[in-house]
Amino acid sequence: MKTCPDLGELGLNAGKKTRLHRILYQFGLHNGTALFLPYDQGLEHGPRDFFANLTASDPGYIARLAVEGGFNGIALQIGLAEKFYWDYAGEVPLILKLNGKTDIPSDDQALSPLHATVADAVRLGADAVGYTMYVGTPAAEADFAQYRQVRDDARRLGMPLIVWAYPRGTAIEAKGGKDSFYAVDYAARTASELGADVVKVNFPHPEKRAGVPRAYDAEFSTQAAIDAVVQSANRTLLLVSGGAQAGDDAMLDKARRSMEAGATGLIFGRNVWQRAHGESMAFVARLQEILAKYPRGGEQR
Amino acid sequence: MKTCPDLGELGLNAGKKTRLHRILYQFGLHNGTALFLPYDQGLEHGPRDFFANLTASDPGYIARLAVEGGFNGIALQIGLAEKFYWDYAGEVPLILKLNGKTDIPSDDQALSPLHATVADAVRLGADAVGYTMYVGTPAAEADFAQYRQVRDDARRLGMPLIVWAYPRGTAIEAKGGKDSFYAVDYAARTASELGADVVKVNFPHPEKRAGVPRAYDAEFSTQAAIDAVVQSANRTLLLVSGGAQAGDDAMLDKARRSMEAGATGLIFGRNVWQRAHGESMAFVARLQEILAKYPRGGEQR
Amino acid sequence: MKTCPDLGELGLNAGKKTRLHRILYQFGLHNGTALFLPYDQGLEHGPRDFFANLTASDPGYIARLAVEGGFNGIALQIGLAEKFYWDYAGEVPLILKLNGKTDIPSDDQALSPLHATVADAVRLGADAVGYTMYVGTPAAEADFAQYRQVRDDARRLGMPLIVWAYPRGTAIEAKGGKDSFYAVDYAARTASELGADVVKVNFPHPEKRAGVPRAYDAEFSTQAAIDAVVQSANRTLLLVSGGAQAGDDAMLDKARRSMEAGATGLIFGRNVWQRAHGESMAFVARLQEILAKYPRGGEQR
Amino acid sequence: MKTCPDLGELGLNAGKKTRLHRILYQFGLHNGTALFLPYDQGLEHGPRDFFANLTASDPGYIARLAVEGGFNGIALQIGLAEKFYWDYAGEVPLILKLNGKTDIPSDDQALSPLHATVADAVRLGADAVGYTMYVGTPAAEADFAQYRQVRDDARRLGMPLIVWAYPRGTAIEAKGGKDSFYAVDYAARTASELGADVVKVNFPHPEKRAGVPRAYDAEFSTQAAIDAVVQSANRTLLLVSGGAQAGDDAMLDKARRSMEAGATGLIFGRNVWQRAHGESMAFVARLQEILAKYPRGGEQR
Amino acid sequence: MKTCPDLGELGLNAGKKTRLHRILYQFGLHNGTALFLPYDQGLEHGPRDFFANLTASDPGYIARLAVEGGFNGIALQIGLAEKFYWDYAGEVPLILKLNGKTDIPSDDQALSPLHATVADAVRLGADAVGYTMYVGTPAAEADFAQYRQVRDDARRLGMPLIVWAYPRGTAIEAKGGKDSFYAVDYAARTASELGADVVKVNFPHPEKRAGVPRAYDAEFSTQAAIDAVVQSANRTLLLVSGGAQAGDDAMLDKARRSMEAGATGLIFGRNVWQRAHGESMAFVARLQEILAKYPRGGEQR
Repeated sequence: MKTCPDLGELGLNAGKKTRLHRILYQFGLHNGTALFLPYDQGLEHGPRDFFANLTASDPGYIARLAVEGGFNGIALQIGLAEKFYWDYAGEVPLILKLNGKTDIPSDDQALSPLHATVADAVRLGADAVGYTMYVGTPAAEADFAQYRQVRDDARRLGMPLIVWAYPRGTAIEAKGGKDSFYAVDYAARTASELGADVVKVNFPHPEKRAGVPRAYDAEFSTQAAIDAVVQSANRTLLLVSGGAQAGDDAMLDKARRSMEAGATGLIFGRNVWQRAHGESMAFVARLQEILAKYPRGGEQR
Repeated sequence: MKTCPDLGELGLNAGKKTRLHRILYQFGLHNGTALFLPYDQGLEHGPRDFFANLTASDPGYIARLAVEGGFNGIALQIGLAEKFYWDYAGEVPLILKLNGKTDIPSDDQALSPLHATVADAVRLGADAVGYTMYVGTPAAEADFAQYRQVRDDARRLGMPLIVWAYPRGTAIEAKGGKDSFYAVDYAARTASELGADVVKVNFPHPEKRAGVPRAYDAEFSTQAAIDAVVQSANRTLLLVSGGAQAGDDAMLDKARRSMEAGATGLIFGRNVWQRAHGESMAFVARLQEILAKYPRGGEQR
Repeated sequence: MKTCPDLGELGLNAGKKTRLHRILYQFGLHNGTALFLPYDQGLEHGPRDFFANLTASDPGYIARLAVEGGFNGIALQIGLAEKFYWDYAGEVPLILKLNGKTDIPSDDQALSPLHATVADAVRLGADAVGYTMYVGTPAAEADFAQYRQVRDDARRLGMPLIVWAYPRGTAIEAKGGKDSFYAVDYAARTASELGADVVKVNFPHPEKRAGVPRAYDAEFSTQAAIDAVVQSANRTLLLVSGGAQAGDDAMLDKARRSMEAGATGLIFGRNVWQRAHGESMAFVARLQEILAKYPRGGEQR
Repeated sequence: MKTCPDLGELGLNAGKKTRLHRILYQFGLHNGTALFLPYDQGLEHGPRDFFANLTASDPGYIARLAVEGGFNGIALQIGLAEKFYWDYAGEVPLILKLNGKTDIPSDDQALSPLHATVADAVRLGADAVGYTMYVGTPAAEADFAQYRQVRDDARRLGMPLIVWAYPRGTAIEAKGGKDSFYAVDYAARTASELGADVVKVNFPHPEKRAGVPRAYDAEFSTQAAIDAVVQSANRTLLLVSGGAQAGDDAMLDKARRSMEAGATGLIFGRNVWQRAHGESMAFVARLQEILAKYPRGGEQR
Repeated sequence: MKTCPDLGELGLNAGKKTRLHRILYQFGLHNGTALFLPYDQGLEHGPRDFFANLTASDPGYIARLAVEGGFNGIALQIGLAEKFYWDYAGEVPLILKLNGKTDIPSDDQALSPLHATVADAVRLGADAVGYTMYVGTPAAEADFAQYRQVRDDARRLGMPLIVWAYPRGTAIEAKGGKDSFYAVDYAARTASELGADVVKVNFPHPEKRAGVPRAYDAEFSTQAAIDAVVQSANRTLLLVSGGAQAGDDAMLDKARRSMEAGATGLIFGRNVWQRAHGESMAFVARLQEILAKYPRGGEQR
């Protein structure tokens, strides 16, 4: 089992450390791991994501789920944060997602425009901000330009910055696709080089090798791949996302391997709430069983 | 009959609540519903919209109609607001439309440029601002960028923000078109995720299914569709627009179903003023008959 | 004969009213009409416009002509205003033209970039600013963006804003062309919706019907067309431009019909100075004869 | 022999007049004419321009040449000005060239980006700034936008503005090319309309007529062409540039005709320093012989 | 052996001279030469560069290598600088690399977006900033625009500016390619013209002549080429970069020729750390042997 960097060695200023400490040690399992509930799919995919469980269309229901399930945080866009978070303010950390887009136009030139600022996050009592960076997109110049402002504001205001590091765009499609080991590994490193405090990646697929650079065109085990991705993130805490709903066993295996590799935690949305309430809670409990086995930074203080 | 969210639970600051309360309870039927008169067609379509009733070319005539008809507000672009609203200031709420465009170039890359600011609205005594967001347009980055500034100014100045959420552009045309259930539902949710206080949508057409995502490629009744759209808007008040003139019965049916679904009101322009004055007033009376049956938030205080 | 809106009902602030009053009642015929001399053709078309009368290449000559001819104003770009207006400062009102372009590249995506600010106009003692808006151009977003700043500065500094409302670009070419009744009517309305104090249009050609919207695809007399254009401008004062040199009788007919329709005046350049000095003065006198028959707002105070 | 406008009638503020007076009457021949040494070819063409005389690669050598040759000024980009001008500060006026580009990509959409500001020029003790405007380029909007800021800063800081008015881009190529009489004449006028204090043009070629507007498609003598160009510049002082090295006699003839037409002076670079030191000095002497015959504004004071 | 310009004659302000003096005379060999360790390949190429020596994936390892090897500085992106430099602060100078990009999309329109500011460098205790300029790229306007701000901030804050002058883009590919003598020579001159204090170039290849301008289409020895490049940089200190790993002898030869030509030093990354620790140290020692033979500016004071 790999270790995970301690909060004390990440180069955090006092505000960032205060808020990350709150998220990691005063919520969830209080053991330095994290389980986050992302809820921006209504914008990213549209209401169709709620057809499997119409109750999940209600942000109030999801916020309650985050509280009841003992999540370390819930990620919302500005509109839902302003309308619904007040009711649960302080009961679960808020991650204000600062950018987002619909999936209506093609992703060839993917760019996720800003909808809110770090100052909005401060005003709403959030403990972190989220930013989607489309690594490799032809629109990288615009992406990096808006990211740079976010990074600087987050530093200035002491707000932890979680980067959704998502390979995307025509060039990535030609080099193994968005969840190849190559793409995910590069995305994790990019987030670290550019100053993310926490990076969220998809689980890497080493078997997707069509068009990847030679170094990645070899046999890697799934565990070797996720190990390498965590290493590429170095002192950036790493979260693995769930993605579209898949079988529970596959998800739990993914969670276990990620924690084994030194990840800090998981960020699972559709796999949690695209089912009835009881099933959601049961699945969350199984995820937490895994996280309980990998306490992080217990040595701190 | 679905209920409509109460003003007290929308996350409004004092300025926004004051102005929305004025619009919804001190004008029109004073019962929490709304009937708005939009008058930006001279810019959006050009003077041809007035050929059916040349008197309607005169903004003074339209402003008088809004007062006489007991509307909850009139929506104008900055030029007409500056030249004509003074004469009726305080007699009917002004919604300053902040952006708009001509229909001369193609809508493939639709974007509606800003012409005024929220500060202009404050200066002119307006009680709300209107913003057209072209959901799904390839120009989404520019659209969201200017919207973000508007949203932030509206919050800072306590001005209610009404989003004209209009699916538009080449990708939407390939996925069912701009008034498909899919497109309208996604547009309502987008406005809510991004912080609209009120959203204006076209009435959804569940029968337009060519190219829509699988979830929408099924039999939905008209009522089920508008019900879902209102639910997608969650704590964002919803207005249904009239669109181009159609038969009165169809319009009244649309109005009734919308209110049944939990909408806050209607925003009808051409259907109102593309006819002689007496007929306009008679049609308005029939719309108000419907609104009278759906008082909203009567329980507040 | 149609009436023209009175200065008192245009929604003007004190600075704008002061300066428009000076232009309309303290210069020219002092009767509320206006005859302007535009002199930006050296930029818009290049020196070739002066080959018919080389003396006209000298801005000093043109400024003297404006004074001697009793014009209500002369329109200049910043460079010529700075180099030549001082000699005649106060003797004829200056309209500082804020944007302009060469005619070297194609007009398909026409946009007229800014060269000066409203503050420059104040500094130079100007009584109005001019802005060319290319209605219908694919570059509308950039056009409206720079216009918005000009409109706001003009309001803040009390400077009357004259919009050169010129239909232009590929879409207009496909819908009847830049001087069709449809295009000119839409342009006048657009300027009014967007807050022009005065709008300059080309004389409408109702016979240009190829590709125009159905409402315009009918028989309209020339007088009916210019009447409609003036009505579309509502409380925006309207000027008719002369365009390229044509026969004097055609020009005088155009002038007469425009004033009959309720226009405030004329803005004639090449038709004035593309001939010898004596002929210029004689033609000006004939234009003034017409204007003298249509005093505007004589009832004021 | 045509006259040249006097400094007193150019609409200059005190700072601009002070600095132009210094350049024209306290350096060079002290007679109101000017001979400038441009040295931005290392950026515009690359080091290949120095292969004919490798010594010329050294900016220090060139600065000494400007001092020894009695030039009225040397034009440098910011980097060379900061590294080399200090050694000769005050001994020859500095013209800080504010923009420039390499000739590596095609000139179809030519635009010359800014590298320095007018404030940099003030800081470095410069007596003028230079700006390359690509007249007729499809990138005109960006060009004019950056020029506008330069013009305004130059006015505010009292710094003379010399515009390199260069026709360029696909449309110009289709209309006679960049040194046709049509193109050069239009460029001179554009600089004047847009507020240049001094304009630098290439010598016009009236025989290049393929594709030019009708007015220019006629027989013009070389002298008639340069006369017209100086007239188009009106109260903007005009400099003629040397361009690529050609025979000395051709150059001297060009110089003589330009001065005859009323130009203020010459700006010759490669023709001066693409030869050995002694030859350079001899050629400069012959240019100065010509300039001595055309004293400008001697009547001033 | 050519000489190298002295710090006293580079036009440096006090802050820049202080920091360059520290880098050149208080670290490394203390003799005015420099050996830098660049470590931005994780962003520029992705983690694949670390597959040859997985330890090199750890920025902490690399920082220790810089200290132990007696480097004159280590170049890092903002994220790694914030997370890892604190541990070694003051022990080796930090060069904060301000821009960078992934190599996922094509380089046809190469542009390297900014990720940090000169103020970030000051805050982190850096002694220089690095900026990648893609000379000849079709995106030159955007490149120069962001560079201009960096140059100005660096001057204002007294921070030495090292320009990675890299020919790149479609036009360069058609004219000999990015490491032709022509391209490297032009790049060095461009950096000097635009105000770099130090320029980093690739070693020139005079044999790459396909498509180069005539002046470069001749026989040049390797030494003649690097001599010319150093001369083109004039008073800009020049560093030669190592590029992809090649044989040690070739690298040492490149180093020797560069120093012979008057370069200030070397910036070698992959050639240093793509091997085991002991081999890295041995190779560094051989580079330093060469640098020791070329003390620079020893005469200063």
